[in-house]
Amino acid sequence: MAEYNIVPLLKLIEQFEKLPGIGNKSARRLAYYMLKLPKDEMEEFLNALKVAHNKIKYCKVCCNLTDKELCPICCNEKRDNSIICVVENPKDVFALERTHEFFAVYHVLHGALSPLSGVGPDQLTIKELLVRIRKEIVKEVIMATNPTVEGEATAMYVSKLLKPIGIKISRLAYGIPVGADLEYADEITLLRALEGRHEM
Amino acid sequence: MAEYNIVPLLKLIEQFEKLPGIGNKSARRLAYYMLKLPKDEMEEFLNALKVAHNKIKYCKVCCNLTDKELCPICCNEKRDNSIICVVENPKDVFALERTHEFFAVYHVLHGALSPLSGVGPDQLTIKELLVRIRKEIVKEVIMATNPTVEGEATAMYVSKLLKPIGIKISRLAYGIPVGADLEYADEITLLRALEGRHEM
Repeated sequence: MAEYNIVPLLKLIEQFEKLPGIGNKSARRLAYYMLKLPKDEMEEFLNALKVAHNKIKYCKVCCNLTDKELCPICCNEKRDNSIICVVENPKDVFALERTHEFFAVYHVLHGALSPLSGVGPDQLTIKELLVRIRKEIVKEVIMATNPTVEGEATAMYVSKLLKPIGIKISRLAYGIPVGADLEYADEITLLRALEGRHEM
Repeated sequence: MAEYNIVPLLKLIEQFEKLPGIGNKSARRLAYYMLKLPKDEMEEFLNALKVAHNKIKYCKVCCNLTDKELCPICCNEKRDNSIICVVENPKDVFALERTHEFFAVYHVLHGALSPLSGVGPDQLTIKELLVRIRKEIVKEVIMATNPTVEGEATAMYVSKLLKPIGIKISRLAYGIPVGADLEYADEITLLRALEGRHEM
Protein backbone atom coordinates (compact mmCIF):
# COMPACT_ATOMS: atom_id res chain seq x y z
CA MET A 1 0.00 0.00 0.00
CA ALA A 2 2.84 2.38 0.92
CA GLU A 3 3.64 3.09 -2.66
CA TYR A 4 0.11 3.25 -3.86
CA ASN A 5 -0.68 6.52 -2.17
CA ILE A 6 -3.15 8.36 -4.37
CA VAL A 7 -4.74 10.36 -1.56
CA PRO A 8 -8.13 11.23 -3.10
CA LEU A 9 -8.63 7.57 -4.05
CA LEU A 10 -7.73 6.32 -0.57
CA LYS A 11 -10.08 8.86 0.99
CA LEU A 12 -12.92 7.74 -1.24
CA ILE A 13 -12.31 4.07 -0.42
CA GLU A 14 -12.29 5.01 3.26
CA GLN A 15 -15.70 6.70 2.88
CA PHE A 16 -17.21 3.66 1.19
CA GLU A 17 -15.78 1.36 3.85
CA LYS A 18 -17.86 3.18 6.46
CA LEU A 19 -21.11 2.11 4.79
CA PRO A 20 -22.97 -0.88 6.26
CA GLY A 21 -22.18 -4.23 4.66
CA ILE A 22 -19.29 -2.81 2.62
CA GLY A 23 -15.88 -4.33 3.34
CA ASN A 24 -12.50 -3.29 2.00
CA LYS A 25 -12.84 -5.13 -1.30
CA SER A 26 -16.32 -3.82 -2.08
CA ALA A 27 -15.27 -0.31 -1.07
CA ARG A 28 -12.36 -0.48 -3.49
CA ARG A 29 -14.62 -1.77 -6.26
CA LEU A 30 -17.19 0.98 -5.66
CA ALA A 31 -14.49 3.67 -5.59
CA TYR A 32 -13.01 2.53 -8.92
CA TYR A 33 -16.49 2.38 -10.38
CA MET A 34 -17.28 5.93 -9.28
CA LEU A 35 -14.05 7.24 -10.82
CA LYS A 36 -15.05 5.79 -14.17
CA LEU A 37 -18.54 7.38 -14.13
CA PRO A 38 -19.17 10.04 -16.79
CA LYS A 39 -19.49 13.57 -15.39
CA ASP A 40 -23.29 13.75 -15.80
CA GLU A 41 -23.95 10.42 -14.06
CA MET A 42 -21.67 11.52 -11.25
CA GLU A 43 -23.65 14.76 -10.91
CA GLU A 44 -26.86 12.74 -10.83
CA PHE A 45 -25.52 10.56 -8.03
CA LEU A 46 -24.30 13.51 -5.96
CA ASN A 47 -27.57 15.28 -6.52
CA ALA A 48 -29.71 12.32 -5.45
CA LEU A 49 -27.71 12.14 -2.22
CA LYS A 50 -27.95 15.86 -1.55
CA VAL A 51 -31.67 16.13 -2.29
CA ALA A 52 -32.59 13.06 -0.26
CA HIS A 53 -30.48 14.21 2.68
CA ASN A 54 -31.94 17.72 2.64
CA LYS A 55 -35.57 16.99 1.89
CA ILE A 56 -36.36 13.84 3.80
CA LYS A 57 -37.45 14.33 7.38
CA TYR A 58 -39.64 12.56 9.93
CA CYS A 59 -43.42 12.41 9.56
CA LYS A 60 -45.05 14.60 12.22
CA VAL A 61 -47.36 11.78 13.28
CA CYS A 62 -45.51 8.47 13.00
CA CYS A 63 -41.86 9.56 12.69
CA ASN A 64 -41.47 7.54 9.48
CA LEU A 65 -39.48 9.12 6.65
CA THR A 66 -41.22 11.56 4.33
CA ASP A 67 -40.53 14.56 2.13
CA LYS A 68 -43.83 16.22 3.08
CA GLU A 69 -45.44 17.15 6.41
CA LEU A 70 -46.97 13.69 6.76
CA CYS A 71 -45.81 10.35 5.37
CA PRO A 72 -47.82 8.64 2.58
CA ILE A 73 -49.24 6.15 5.08
CA CYS A 74 -50.47 8.73 7.59
CA CYS A 75 -52.00 10.71 4.68
CA ASN A 76 -53.97 7.73 3.47
CA GLU A 77 -57.59 7.89 4.66
CA LYS A 78 -58.15 4.19 4.03
CA ARG A 79 -55.77 3.27 6.84
CA ASP A 80 -57.05 2.10 10.21
CA ASN A 81 -55.75 4.73 12.61
CA SER A 82 -56.89 2.77 15.64
CA ILE A 83 -54.15 0.16 15.28
CA ILE A 84 -50.55 1.37 15.62
CA CYS A 85 -47.73 -0.97 14.66
CA VAL A 86 -44.50 0.04 16.44
CA VAL A 87 -41.29 -0.74 14.55
CA GLU A 88 -37.63 0.04 15.05
CA ASN A 89 -36.72 1.47 11.65
CA PRO A 90 -38.27 2.87 8.45
CA LYS A 91 -37.12 -0.21 6.55
CA ASP A 92 -39.30 -2.35 8.82
CA VAL A 93 -42.30 -0.33 7.60
CA PHE A 94 -41.28 -1.19 4.08
CA ALA A 95 -41.00 -4.90 5.00
CA LEU A 96 -44.48 -4.94 6.56
CA GLU A 97 -45.97 -3.00 3.65
CA ARG A 98 -44.81 -5.78 1.34
CA THR A 99 -47.41 -8.09 2.90
CA HIS A 100 -50.02 -5.92 1.08
CA GLU A 101 -52.61 -7.01 3.65
CA PHE A 102 -51.86 -4.85 6.61
CA PHE A 103 -53.74 -1.55 6.77
CA ALA A 104 -52.89 -0.20 10.20
CA VAL A 105 -50.61 2.80 10.76
CA TYR A 106 -47.06 2.75 12.09
CA HIS A 107 -44.86 4.36 14.65
CA VAL A 108 -41.12 4.35 13.95
CA LEU A 109 -38.92 4.38 17.05
CA HIS A 110 -35.68 4.94 15.09
CA GLY A 111 -33.76 2.33 17.01
CA ALA A 112 -34.09 0.01 19.97
CA LEU A 113 -33.05 0.35 23.59
CA SER A 114 -29.41 -0.55 23.94
CA PRO A 115 -27.72 0.75 27.09
CA LEU A 116 -24.34 -0.52 25.89
CA SER A 117 -24.50 1.67 22.78
CA GLY A 118 -25.91 4.57 24.77
CA VAL A 119 -29.43 4.32 23.36
CA GLY A 120 -31.95 5.02 26.09
CA PRO A 121 -35.70 5.85 25.90
CA ASP A 122 -34.90 9.52 25.17
CA GLN A 123 -33.06 8.63 21.98
CA LEU A 124 -36.14 6.87 20.63
CA THR A 125 -39.48 8.41 19.65
CA ILE A 126 -41.30 6.87 22.62
CA LYS A 127 -42.44 10.27 23.89
CA GLU A 128 -44.06 10.98 20.51
CA LEU A 129 -45.84 7.62 20.70
CA LEU A 130 -47.30 8.43 24.11
CA VAL A 131 -48.50 11.87 22.97
CA ARG A 132 -50.08 10.28 19.95
CA ILE A 133 -51.89 7.60 21.94
CA ARG A 134 -53.29 10.21 24.32
CA LYS A 135 -54.58 12.34 21.44
CA GLU A 136 -56.02 9.70 19.11
CA ILE A 137 -58.45 6.85 19.65
CA VAL A 138 -56.20 3.81 19.65
CA LYS A 139 -57.54 0.29 20.12
CA GLU A 140 -54.37 -1.74 19.77
CA VAL A 141 -50.61 -1.30 19.69
CA ILE A 142 -48.67 -4.06 17.92
CA MET A 143 -45.05 -4.26 19.04
CA ALA A 144 -43.17 -5.24 15.90
CA THR A 145 -39.62 -4.59 17.07
CA ASN A 146 -37.00 -7.14 16.03
CA PRO A 147 -36.78 -10.53 17.79
CA THR A 148 -33.38 -9.58 19.24
CA VAL A 149 -32.38 -8.80 22.82
CA GLU A 150 -32.66 -5.06 22.12
CA GLY A 151 -35.95 -5.37 20.24
CA GLU A 152 -37.37 -7.55 22.98
CA ALA A 153 -36.31 -5.12 25.71
CA THR A 154 -37.83 -2.22 23.78
CA ALA A 155 -41.12 -4.07 23.34
CA MET A 156 -41.22 -4.83 27.07
CA TYR A 157 -40.38 -1.24 28.01
CA VAL A 158 -42.98 0.33 25.75
CA SER A 159 -45.69 -2.14 26.72
CA LYS A 160 -45.10 -1.40 30.42
CA LEU A 161 -45.53 2.31 29.69
CA LEU A 162 -48.75 1.72 27.77
CA LYS A 163 -50.39 -0.84 30.07
CA PRO A 164 -51.75 1.79 32.53
CA ILE A 165 -53.50 3.60 29.67
CA GLY A 166 -55.51 0.44 29.12
CA ILE A 167 -55.08 -0.35 25.44
CA LYS A 168 -54.51 -3.80 23.98
CA ILE A 169 -50.84 -4.46 23.34
CA SER A 170 -49.70 -7.36 21.19
CA ARG A 171 -46.41 -8.74 19.92
CA LEU A 172 -45.59 -10.37 16.56
CA ALA A 173 -45.77 -14.18 16.68
CA TYR A 174 -42.59 -16.22 16.90
CA GLY A 175 -42.28 -19.44 14.94
CA ILE A 176 -40.69 -21.19 12.03
CA PRO A 177 -40.45 -19.03 8.90
CA VAL A 178 -42.74 -20.16 6.07
CA GLY A 179 -40.83 -22.19 3.48
CA ALA A 180 -37.97 -22.98 5.86
CA ASP A 181 -36.71 -26.41 6.81
CA LEU A 182 -37.38 -27.66 10.36
CA GLU A 183 -33.97 -29.28 10.30
CA TYR A 184 -32.24 -25.91 10.14
CA ALA A 185 -34.38 -24.05 12.65
CA ASP A 186 -32.60 -23.18 15.90
CA GLU A 187 -33.79 -24.61 19.21
CA ILE A 188 -35.25 -21.39 20.57
CA THR A 189 -37.30 -20.74 17.44
CA LEU A 190 -38.59 -24.33 17.49
CA LEU A 191 -39.50 -24.02 21.15
CA ARG A 192 -41.38 -20.79 20.46
CA ALA A 193 -43.13 -22.42 17.50
CA LEU A 194 -44.25 -25.29 19.77
CA GLU A 195 -45.43 -22.89 22.47
CA GLY A 196 -47.36 -20.88 19.92
CA ARG A 197 -48.98 -23.89 18.22
CA HIS A 198 -52.63 -23.51 17.24
CA GLU A 199 -55.45 -25.94 16.53
CA MET A 200 -56.02 -26.98 12.93
CA MET B 1 -44.55 0.16 -3.32
CA ALA B 2 -47.31 2.33 -4.85
CA GLU B 3 -48.13 3.96 -1.57
CA TYR B 4 -44.62 4.31 -0.40
CA ASN B 5 -43.70 7.01 -2.87
CA ILE B 6 -41.19 9.29 -1.21
CA VAL B 7 -39.58 10.44 -4.45
CA PRO B 8 -36.15 11.59 -3.17
CA LEU B 9 -35.74 8.29 -1.31
CA LEU B 10 -36.70 6.21 -4.35
CA LYS B 11 -34.27 8.19 -6.51
CA LEU B 12 -31.45 7.61 -4.03
CA ILE B 13 -32.16 3.87 -3.87
CA GLU B 14 -32.16 3.81 -7.67
CA GLN B 15 -28.72 5.45 -7.74
CA PHE B 16 -27.28 2.93 -5.30
CA GLU B 17 -28.77 0.05 -7.27
CA LYS B 18 -26.65 1.07 -10.26
CA LEU B 19 -23.44 0.37 -8.35
CA PRO B 20 -21.65 -2.92 -8.97
CA GLY B 21 -22.52 -5.72 -6.55
CA ILE B 22 -25.37 -3.74 -4.97
CA GLY B 23 -28.82 -5.32 -5.28
CA ASN B 24 -32.16 -3.87 -4.27
CA LYS B 25 -31.87 -4.79 -0.59
CA SER B 26 -28.36 -3.42 -0.17
CA ALA B 27 -29.31 -0.26 -2.08
CA ARG B 28 -32.21 0.28 0.28
CA ARG B 29 -29.99 -0.29 3.31
CA LEU B 30 -27.36 2.13 2.02
CA ALA B 31 -29.98 4.79 1.24
CA TYR B 32 -31.49 4.59 4.74
CA TYR B 33 -28.00 4.74 6.20
CA MET B 34 -27.12 7.86 4.23
CA LEU B 35 -30.31 9.61 5.35
CA LYS B 36 -29.33 9.07 8.97
CA LEU B 37 -25.82 10.50 8.51
CA PRO B 38 -25.11 13.74 10.38
CA LYS B 39 -24.69 16.76 8.11
CA ASP B 40 -20.90 16.95 8.47
CA GLU B 41 -20.33 13.28 7.68
CA MET B 42 -22.58 13.66 4.66
CA GLU B 43 -20.51 16.64 3.48
CA GLU B 44 -17.36 14.58 3.94
CA PHE B 45 -18.77 11.79 1.81
CA LEU B 46 -19.93 14.12 -0.96
CA ASN B 47 -16.60 15.90 -0.87
CA ALA B 48 -14.55 12.71 -1.13
CA LEU B 49 -16.56 11.73 -4.19
CA LYS B 50 -16.22 15.14 -5.83
CA VAL B 51 -12.51 15.51 -5.17
CA ALA B 52 -11.68 11.98 -6.32
CA HIS B 53 -13.76 12.37 -9.46
CA ASN B 54 -12.22 15.73 -10.34
CA LYS B 55 -8.60 15.12 -9.42
CA ILE B 56 -7.91 11.57 -10.43
CA LYS B 57 -6.81 11.05 -14.03
CA TYR B 58 -4.69 8.61 -15.99
CA CYS B 59 -0.91 8.46 -15.58
CA LYS B 60 0.78 9.81 -18.73
CA VAL B 61 3.00 6.75 -19.00
CA CYS B 62 1.08 3.68 -17.87
CA CYS B 63 -2.55 4.93 -17.85
CA ASN B 64 -2.99 3.85 -14.23
CA LEU B 65 -4.92 6.18 -11.95
CA THR B 66 -3.11 9.11 -10.35
CA ASP B 67 -3.71 12.59 -9.00
CA LYS B 68 -0.35 13.84 -10.36
CA GLU B 69 1.26 13.81 -13.80
CA LEU B 70 2.70 10.33 -13.22
CA CYS B 71 1.45 7.53 -10.99
CA PRO B 72 3.42 6.56 -7.86
CA ILE B 73 4.77 3.46 -9.59
CA CYS B 74 6.06 5.25 -12.70
CA CYS B 75 7.64 7.88 -10.44
CA ASN B 76 9.55 5.28 -8.45
CA GLU B 77 13.15 5.00 -9.63
CA LYS B 78 13.62 1.57 -8.04
CA ARG B 79 11.20 0.02 -10.52
CA ASP B 80 12.43 -2.04 -13.44
CA ASN B 81 11.20 -0.10 -16.46
CA SER B 82 12.26 -2.83 -18.87
CA ILE B 83 9.44 -5.17 -17.83
CA ILE B 84 5.88 -4.01 -18.49
CA CYS B 85 3.01 -5.91 -16.95
CA VAL B 86 -0.19 -5.33 -18.95
CA VAL B 87 -3.41 -5.47 -16.92
CA GLU B 88 -7.05 -4.75 -17.62
CA ASN B 89 -7.91 -2.44 -14.73
CA PRO B 90 -6.33 -0.29 -12.00
CA LYS B 91 -7.54 -2.73 -9.36
CA ASP B 92 -5.42 -5.44 -10.98
CA VAL B 93 -2.37 -3.26 -10.32
CA PHE B 94 -3.39 -3.13 -6.70
CA ALA B 95 -3.77 -6.94 -6.60
CA LEU B 96 -0.31 -7.51 -8.10
CA GLU B 97 1.25 -4.91 -5.79
CA ARG B 98 0.03 -6.93 -2.84
CA THR B 99 2.57 -9.65 -3.73
CA HIS B 100 5.24 -7.16 -2.54
CA GLU B 101 7.78 -8.95 -4.72
CA PHE B 102 7.06 -7.63 -8.15
CA PHE B 103 9.02 -4.57 -9.16
CA ALA B 104 8.21 -4.13 -12.84
CA VAL B 105 6.02 -1.34 -14.19
CA TYR B 106 2.46 -1.63 -15.46
CA HIS B 107 0.29 -0.69 -18.37
CA VAL B 108 -3.43 -0.41 -17.70
CA LEU B 109 -5.66 -1.14 -20.70
CA HIS B 110 -8.87 0.02 -18.97
CA GLY B 111 -10.87 -2.95 -20.14
CA ALA B 112 -10.64 -6.00 -22.37
CA LEU B 113 -11.67 -6.60 -25.96
CA SER B 114 -15.35 -7.47 -26.06
CA PRO B 115 -17.02 -6.99 -29.44
CA LEU B 116 -20.43 -7.79 -27.96
CA SER B 117 -20.19 -4.87 -25.54
CA GLY B 118 -18.73 -2.62 -28.22
CA VAL B 119 -15.19 -2.62 -26.80
CA GLY B 120 -12.65 -2.73 -29.63
CA PRO B 121 -8.90 -1.99 -29.63
CA ASP B 122 -9.57 1.76 -29.91
CA GLN B 123 -11.43 1.80 -26.59
CA LEU B 124 -8.38 0.39 -24.82
CA THR B 125 -4.99 2.03 -24.26
CA ILE B 126 -3.24 -0.27 -26.74
CA LYS B 127 -2.00 2.62 -28.86
CA GLU B 128 -0.36 4.16 -25.79
CA LEU B 129 1.33 0.82 -25.06
CA LEU B 130 2.81 0.65 -28.58
CA VAL B 131 4.09 4.23 -28.39
CA ARG B 132 5.65 3.46 -25.04
CA ILE B 133 7.38 0.31 -26.23
CA ARG B 134 8.86 2.12 -29.23
CA LYS B 135 10.21 4.93 -27.02
CA GLU B 136 11.59 2.94 -24.07
CA ILE B 137 13.93 -0.02 -23.84
CA VAL B 138 11.60 -2.89 -23.01
CA LYS B 139 12.82 -6.45 -22.54
CA GLU B 140 9.59 -8.20 -21.67
CA VAL B 141 5.86 -7.66 -21.70
CA ILE B 142 3.86 -9.79 -19.27
CA MET B 143 0.21 -10.16 -20.31
CA ALA B 144 -1.67 -10.22 -17.01
CA THR B 145 -5.21 -9.81 -18.33
CA ASN B 146 -7.91 -11.92 -16.66
CA PRO B 147 -8.23 -15.65 -17.44
CA THR B 148 -11.61 -15.02 -19.11
CA VAL B 149 -12.61 -15.20 -22.76
CA GLU B 150 -12.21 -11.42 -23.10
CA GLY B 151 -8.93 -11.30 -21.20
CA GLU B 152 -7.58 -14.16 -23.25
CA ALA B 153 -8.59 -12.53 -26.53
CA THR B 154 -6.99 -9.27 -25.44
CA ALA B 155 -3.74 -11.02 -24.51
CA MET B 156 -3.69 -12.74 -27.91
CA TYR B 157 -4.42 -9.52 -29.79
CA VAL B 158 -1.77 -7.47 -28.00
CA SER B 159 0.85 -10.19 -28.28
CA LYS B 160 0.29 -10.45 -32.03
CA LEU B 161 0.83 -6.69 -32.33
CA LEU B 162 4.04 -6.85 -30.30
CA LYS B 163 5.60 -9.96 -31.82
CA PRO B 164 7.01 -8.12 -34.91
CA ILE B 165 8.85 -5.66 -32.62
CA GLY B 166 10.78 -8.63 -31.26
CA ILE B 167 10.32 -8.40 -27.49
CA LYS B 168 9.68 -11.32 -25.16
CA ILE B 169 5.98 -11.69 -24.39
CA SER B 170 4.76 -13.86 -21.54
CA ARG B 171 1.44 -14.76 -19.95
CA LEU B 172 0.59 -15.43 -16.29
CA ALA B 173 0.66 -19.14 -15.39
CA TYR B 174 -2.57 -21.07 -15.09
CA GLY B 175 -2.95 -23.64 -12.36
CA ILE B 176 -4.58 -24.51 -9.08
CA PRO B 177 -4.74 -21.61 -6.63
CA VAL B 178 -2.47 -22.00 -3.59
CA GLY B 179 -4.42 -23.24 -0.57
CA ALA B 180 -7.32 -24.53 -2.67
CA ASP B 181 -8.71 -28.04 -2.68
CA LEU B 182 -8.07 -30.21 -5.77
CA GLU B 183 -11.54 -31.66 -5.30
CA TYR B 184 -13.17 -28.31 -6.02
CA ALA B 185 -10.99 -27.24 -8.94
CA ASP B 186 -12.76 -27.20 -12.30
CA GLU B 187 -11.60 -29.49 -15.11
CA ILE B 188 -10.04 -26.79 -17.28
CA THR B 189 -7.99 -25.40 -14.41
CA LEU B 190 -6.80 -28.91 -13.52
CA LEU B 191 -5.89 -29.61 -17.13
CA ARG B 192 -3.92 -26.36 -17.31
CA ALA B 193 -2.20 -27.22 -14.03
CA LEU B 194 -1.17 -30.60 -15.45
CA GLU B 195 0.07 -29.05 -18.69
CA GLY B 196 2.07 -26.49 -16.76
CA ARG B 197 3.62 -28.98 -14.31
CA HIS B 198 7.29 -28.49 -13.47
CA GLU B 199 10.03 -30.73 -12.15
CA MET B 200 10.62 -30.79 -8.42
